Amino acid sequence: MRILVLHGPNLNLLGTRQPELYGRASLDEIDAAITERAGQLGVEVRTLQSNSEGALVDAVQAARDSAAGIIINPAGYSHTSVALRDSLLAVSLPAVEVHLTNPAAREEFRHVDLVAGACLGVVAGFGMSGYLVALELLVAHLRDRSHS
Amino acid sequence: MRILVLHGPNLNLLGTRQPELYGRASLDEIDAAITERAGQLGVEVRTLQSNSEGALVDAVQAARDSAAGIIINPAGYSHTSVALRDSLLAVSLPAVEVHLTNPAAREEFRHVDLVAGACLGVVAGFGMSGYLVALELLVAHLRDRSHS
Amino acid sequence: MRILVLHGPNLNLLGTRQPELYGRASLDEIDAAITERAGQLGVEVRTLQSNSEGALVDAVQAARDSAAGIIINPAGYSHTSVALRDSLLAVSLPAVEVHLTNPAAREEFRHVDLVAGACLGVVAGFGMSGYLVALELLVAHLRDRSHS
Amino acid sequence: MRILVLHGPNLNLLGTRQPELYGRASLDEIDAAITERAGQLGVEVRTLQSNSEGALVDAVQAARDSAAGIIINPAGYSHTSVALRDSLLAVSLPAVEVHLTNPAAREEFRHVDLVAGACLGVVAGFGMSGYLVALELLVAHLRDRSHS
Amino acid sequence: MRILVLHGPNLNLLGTRQPELYGRASLDEIDAAITERAGQLGVEVRTLQSNSEGALVDAVQAARDSAAGIIINPAGYSHTSVALRDSLLAVSLPAVEVHLTNPAAREEFRHVDLVAGACLGVVAGFGMSGYLVALELLVAHLRDRSHS
Amino acid sequence: MRILVLHGPNLNLLGTRQPELYGRASLDEIDAAITERAGQLGVEVRTLQSNSEGALVDAVQAARDSAAGIIINPAGYSHTSVALRDSLLAVSLPAVEVHLTNPAAREEFRHVDLVAGACLGVVAGFGMSGYLVALELLVAHLRDRSHS
Amino acid sequence: MRILVLHGPNLNLLGTRQPELYGRASLDEIDAAITERAGQLGVEVRTLQSNSEGALVDAVQAARDSAAGIIINPAGYSHTSVALRDSLLAVSLPAVEVHLTNPAAREEFRHVDLVAGACLGVVAGFGMSGYLVALELLVAHLRDRSHS
Amino acid sequence: MRILVLHGPNLNLLGTRQPELYGRASLDEIDAAITERAGQLGVEVRTLQSNSEGALVDAVQAARDSAAGIIINPAGYSHTSVALRDSLLAVSLPAVEVHLTNPAAREEFRHVDLVAGACLGVVAGFGMSGYLVALELLVAHLRDRSHS
Amino acid sequence: MRILVLHGPNLNLLGTRQPELYGRASLDEIDAAITERAGQLGVEVRTLQSNSEGALVDAVQAARDSAAGIIINPAGYSHTSVALRDSLLAVSLPAVEVHLTNPAAREEFRHVDLVAGACLGVVAGFGMSGYLVALELLVAHLRDRSHS
Amino acid sequence: MRILVLHGPNLNLLGTRQPELYGRASLDEIDAAITERAGQLGVEVRTLQSNSEGALVDAVQAARDSAAGIIINPAGYSHTSVALRDSLLAVSLPAVEVHLTNPAAREEFRHVDLVAGACLGVVAGFGMSGYLVALELLVAHLRDRSHS
Amino acid sequence: MRILVLHGPNLNLLGTRQPELYGRASLDEIDAAITERAGQLGVEVRTLQSNSEGALVDAVQAARDSAAGIIINPAGYSHTSVALRDSLLAVSLPAVEVHLTNPAAREEFRHVDLVAGACLGVVAGFGMSGYLVALELLVAHLRDRSHS
Amino acid sequence: MRILVLHGPNLNLLGTRQPELYGRASLDEIDAAITERAGQLGVEVRTLQSNSEGALVDAVQAARDSAAGIIINPAGYSHTSVALRDSLLAVSLPAVEVHLTNPAAREEFRHVDLVAGACLGVVAGFGMSGYLVALELLVAHLRDRSHS
Repeated sequence: MRILVLHGPNLNLLGTRQPELYGRASLDEIDAAITERAGQLGVEVRTLQSNSEGALVDAVQAARDSAAGIIINPAGYSHTSVALRDSLLAVSLPAVEVHLTNPAAREEFRHVDLVAGACLGVVAGFGMSGYLVALELLVAHLRDRSHS
Repeated sequence: MRILVLHGPNLNLLGTRQPELYGRASLDEIDAAITERAGQLGVEVRTLQSNSEGALVDAVQAARDSAAGIIINPAGYSHTSVALRDSLLAVSLPAVEVHLTNPAAREEFRHVDLVAGACLGVVAGFGMSGYLVALELLVAHLRDRSHS
Repeated sequence: MRILVLHGPNLNLLGTRQPELYGRASLDEIDAAITERAGQLGVEVRTLQSNSEGALVDAVQAARDSAAGIIINPAGYSHTSVALRDSLLAVSLPAVEVHLTNPAAREEFRHVDLVAGACLGVVAGFGMSGYLVALELLVAHLRDRSHS
Repeated sequence: MRILVLHGPNLNLLGTRQPELYGRASLDEIDAAITERAGQLGVEVRTLQSNSEGALVDAVQAARDSAAGIIINPAGYSHTSVALRDSLLAVSLPAVEVHLTNPAAREEFRHVDLVAGACLGVVAGFGMSGYLVALELLVAHLRDRSHS
Repeated sequence: MRILVLHGPNLNLLGTRQPELYGRASLDEIDAAITERAGQLGVEVRTLQSNSEGALVDAVQAARDSAAGIIINPAGYSHTSVALRDSLLAVSLPAVEVHLTNPAAREEFRHVDLVAGACLGVVAGFGMSGYLVALELLVAHLRDRSHS
Repeated sequence: MRILVLHGPNLNLLGTRQPELYGRASLDEIDAAITERAGQLGVEVRTLQSNSEGALVDAVQAARDSAAGIIINPAGYSHTSVALRDSLLAVSLPAVEVHLTNPAAREEFRHVDLVAGACLGVVAGFGMSGYLVALELLVAHLRDRSHS
Repeated sequence: MRILVLHGPNLNLLGTRQPELYGRASLDEIDAAITERAGQLGVEVRTLQSNSEGALVDAVQAARDSAAGIIINPAGYSHTSVALRDSLLAVSLPAVEVHLTNPAAREEFRHVDLVAGACLGVVAGFGMSGYLVALELLVAHLRDRSHS
Repeated sequence: MRILVLHGPNLNLLGTRQPELYGRASLDEIDAAITERAGQLGVEVRTLQSNSEGALVDAVQAARDSAAGIIINPAGYSHTSVALRDSLLAVSLPAVEVHLTNPAAREEFRHVDLVAGACLGVVAGFGMSGYLVALELLVAHLRDRSHS
Repeated sequence: MRILVLHGPNLNLLGTRQPELYGRASLDEIDAAITERAGQLGVEVRTLQSNSEGALVDAVQAARDSAAGIIINPAGYSHTSVALRDSLLAVSLPAVEVHLTNPAAREEFRHVDLVAGACLGVVAGFGMSGYLVALELLVAHLRDRSHS
Repeated sequence: MRILVLHGPNLNLLGTRQPELYGRASLDEIDAAITERAGQLGVEVRTLQSNSEGALVDAVQAARDSAAGIIINPAGYSHTSVALRDSLLAVSLPAVEVHLTNPAAREEFRHVDLVAGACLGVVAGFGMSGYLVALELLVAHLRDRSHS
Repeated sequence: MRILVLHGPNLNLLGTRQPELYGRASLDEIDAAITERAGQLGVEVRTLQSNSEGALVDAVQAARDSAAGIIINPAGYSHTSVALRDSLLAVSLPAVEVHLTNPAAREEFRHVDLVAGACLGVVAGFGMSGYLVALELLVAHLRDRSHS
Repeated sequence: MRILVLHGPNLNLLGTRQPELYGRASLDEIDAAITERAGQLGVEVRTLQSNSEGALVDAVQAARDSAAGIIINPAGYSHTSVALRDSLLAVSLPAVEVHLTNPAAREEFRHVDLVAGACLGVVAGFGMSGYLVALELLVAHLRDRSHS
């Protein structure tokens, strides 16, 4: 079982910039932690970061032949991308949206989330840990489904 | 370390009603699972369900002398209660909002969440499991904070 | 066959206050008239008034084991209560919303009705008589359904 | 005492189309039921259906010399017709709005009702029965008024 | 002459929490100050705090037989409660709304006040002193009215 | 030179209904006054009232071969009729909108006027006299234009 | 196979008015072109123009016994007519909406289209040709359906 | 009988600027025409132009002791001045609003008119002539009123 | 200690106009009462009324060298003046907004208050008395601050 | 004569995913059908699909030197892309927007179309056939224009 | 060549108040810097500050006979003054709007700018330097224009 | 000191398209002028144009290690890109937004600017010159800061 982990725009800057808001872990450290947890869960992960909306849509699409589920942090595209929402609906893989911070506690224009409605669920506000529990929840969901 | 788990209106009906939407576990089963996980984590939980906005506010307030953090599923009050939001801000305990379903994939009036902005973060869309990971995330946050 | 009749906030003041708007009958007189009509229809009624949103939600929930249908005048909560709407959807009993006055002819904020969408139908603007025809309509609906 | 019963656009199609939404009774059957109930109540009714907003306004106006009250199902014009609203205000006859279905449980653009604010009250969601209780409520209102 | 003083949700926490926003006086100290000022003015006061919307509606209603006027700080319910507004209109006692802070200088969702429109006037932004001048203004209004 | 004078829905009721709002003159008296003033100005008028939006559109269209300008009181259709607006633009005759009352001082939904933007100008709030000055203004405009 | 072609308000003026916007073809020429194309496609058409919303609803309704599909240019009623939308839904014939111009490139109030949502599809911005391709698309759809 | 004629901001530039929009008459020529017409009607006029909102409010107030009615062209303040609206309500003199152009055919932000609702009526779109008919209508209204 | 008392547009008309709304006291009487109360409190007041937004801004600015605080009733400018708001922020003197009536119980456009957010607090709905308690509250605030 | 055919995000998934919504033809089959029709019409087509907003803008720009017109299905970018709209306006080539489904019958956020206003016209709701008629309409438009 | 430099409300307070927001330069220092730069550019400037909207409109108007262009910082009137916008359009002199701070990074109500749309362009966020570059840009524009 | 100059979508078309709106200079000419001015100011510039939102985000990010400040013309992305806004905030380099035209004088959807709020300031409406003064302002800001 393989899981695709997608990081949206500006997440490649993690750790060295605005750590008071986004935490001190770099994206590499986050990806390492995800990979380690995946190993414990007995699944494989592939991680990808892009600043481009189109590249993220490409990756979601490519996942349908190569992954069982998606973990996605759409960052700034959460609030504006119909294309990303449509790609998740088109591949119909179970997806979990992750946010490092809690958008509900930030600016008004971050309160609308076009992507979340195409996901199984959302984990927001827990920094790196959010990815790890999203992975556990997604794996559990996939195993559950394959048993019923 | 004690955690208060608050269930909002209509959650006492879980399991026997609309299981296709909210899952087949009863609230007692959910509370049992939370308690078990709490035991594994070495913390104590107290759970409470109420259909009354005022009783939920009372419970949040009482928590400031008796709990280290709050897990709250405000259900229908998520979208309309300034009072519940204010109570969380007033006691300033770390709180995690849980939703069994994913409000972003439901009716328009469920897309506004007044309570979430007063929480540390949100876990939505994973049924009973959402409570368990919320508990883990909250406990980790509290231990983290006490070490720094 | 038992019907629950729920009166929302401020309806306990009926008769002695603002009779030009809400009519001269007290809530006791209204309940007596409902009970009498119920007798004629061969059904039993239980009536309850509360100013508390939570207590009304409690009552709706309790109805699922003890009543075949609900007549509800949510008064001020009609326009703000997602919790009450959710409780009606959760118990999935047929419900009829009654308003003594006609909200469409009053203030703008009374034109939105969150509860009505979870009901079978609405009778508005006919004072005490509205409850009586709501009862007849609900009983007819229930008998109809049990014959088909 | 004569009552005018007005049916708005598309109601002439009743019975043979979308019966799961609007019921199986044809408009003729509904009119027959209304006429029978009117006979029991000792009043006369005249029924009229039109797809034209102007013809409905004409009929409301004509009623002021020939009817004591109006029962009106404005159907699609409920949500857009200032002209129909003004005609009811101009003739100042007591009117009752009837809807076969419950607009609050349908599309957003059916939640605004310009005509209802010019009526005594509303009965919605009870199919053919809605007309019958509207007739009873209107007759009771007219008799009440003539005694006081 | 008796005055009812109502404190809404979360005001029981005053003094020990967020003193930089709400001041250092506890609710008991505020009530003591109100009672003392009432004594100087020759009136009696009864104070009540509740986190429950329904309990506040109950208290407003009960006041019509036991009080000449109401001082109310609806806190979080100011912005969402039609029921509280209706209760004040129903008992038609003169009421004064008090806010410890100035809502116009806070979050957007605190700029709408459904309760204020059912009051004689508003005093906002002066902490505990706001209650005292509200009391003076209300007593003056009541004495004025009883003389004319 | 011939002028078409169009009266929209419910204006046939003028004089006998709501005279405190719309004045005591009947539509016949208004038409007589318009005709008399037209005679003094040396122009011919044709007047028409209809409750039907389509009939008013028909009349506007017919005017392009038979009239030099239009005076129109669209009444309730002022606020909802794109079709009437389009017909005035299509025939491109100079038109003057007349309102007996002042819509700016009435309900909110009367503040939007779709027809006015397709007219030369508006005269509102002067009852019957509004038609007479509209006629004078329109005739002056037409004579002015034919001289330049 | 018979197709009903409906032209809404002001379309009878085509050709002689505002040709820069709506083209130089008269409605008769358009109807002739549609009829010719229908002949080539081996279907029959009936065309009708009306300025009256009610007459258009009548025509849609009549189509259910006499036509296999509808081509409709609702013109100004596109943006305001719930009644026309309901009639299309009631007869449940496949319909294609045609606009001579492109509403998305015109005034804001032409951007909302209540009728389009009850149609199979929309062809906008191609003048007379729009009717012809709409006819082809509709006929193809009907033949497709009858083969599957 | 004296009438105050008030011209708002930028109207002092009339005639020499943007004549295609506002006409070729200067403000002096307009004032001369108004004065001449006033003479014919047997009333006195005083005219005043100001670019200052406060000076216009001053003038309205001063009118209550020196004028029987007001003609006002608030120009740019029409859309933003609550103070001017309040001054007209405070002096409660009959007022007529005049616009040289037709605001309904201009930018969106000119479609809201805060001042018009405090006036007897409006004459818009007729350039200088608008002032003259406004004067006639106002004088007729004043004479009418003094006779009844 | 000197306090500036500013009265906005139309307040110079107090007492003789609309006394049922604004009370019977003239502005001179109000100023006399304020001055008297100031004497009792041991402070000096300077009062100023202007109908001009700019003059009010001038006065606020001048206060920074000559006054310790400001009492301001911006009347109609409350709802539209960013300039007045900015002047209060610029001088950063403590200010109290006073309204004779309760804007929350009046027209919708009076519910937005741009000036209030730049003040310490608000006293609304108590006529002349509102100024007196505002003075007391402001003086208490200033003395409090100078002691801490 | 060469035509550029642009397919927006997620359209590369056509045929194998959600065929009940988007049809069973793959994008290759659609492109083959377009190419074949182009051959019949004697024009050349170049087709391109991209998930990237920037790549689509690049392609539109490149078209100005290599194509006579554009057929574009902007899919998810229809509703959010000012950049795509600007590119079409910048190259000022005639363009036709195509949608496989009918956005007016789908989610609210698909009812706003920023790109359509920069096109000649729109064909929506006819699956693959929509591209073919769009091609015919565009070619006819281009030939028409080159003859006049 | 003469340029008018207009400073709106509260700008006379510059330098001594809120320097962290608006900078440390006084308005006199800013005017001196502008005058110096004007000298270098070979043009003459006249500067004026007023807190009054009407006085600013007066100054814009007066400029048409005495200046070749305008630099204007409307401050608080940027967001509310239709009159100022109209004055700039009426005199049709090229104007440049200057803001000391960046309104896009401040409160929501500063994001609407009614005056900017009547200007050539905007320079915002650069304190005193903004005036200097605005002067250079305006002079360049004027010289450019006089050469073409 | 190095400055990054970023040009957003469609700006590569400058000079040859819509010169009446965007000027006659090509992007190469603009870049040459910027480079020349940079030389005069003693700084280095790197310029980049992209139609892709993701590529612009990449460039902003890359700037943090290679540039002291950013000049950005986000063109169509100004109004829709949260990702670009976030990238500027993440790298926290001083940035200046440039627009060739004045968005406030164009379509409504260009009045919202998500990127501007993350910039130091804005220069709009001066074509190529806007870039040059933006460069001067940015360099001055950087030198100022490094001296304090």
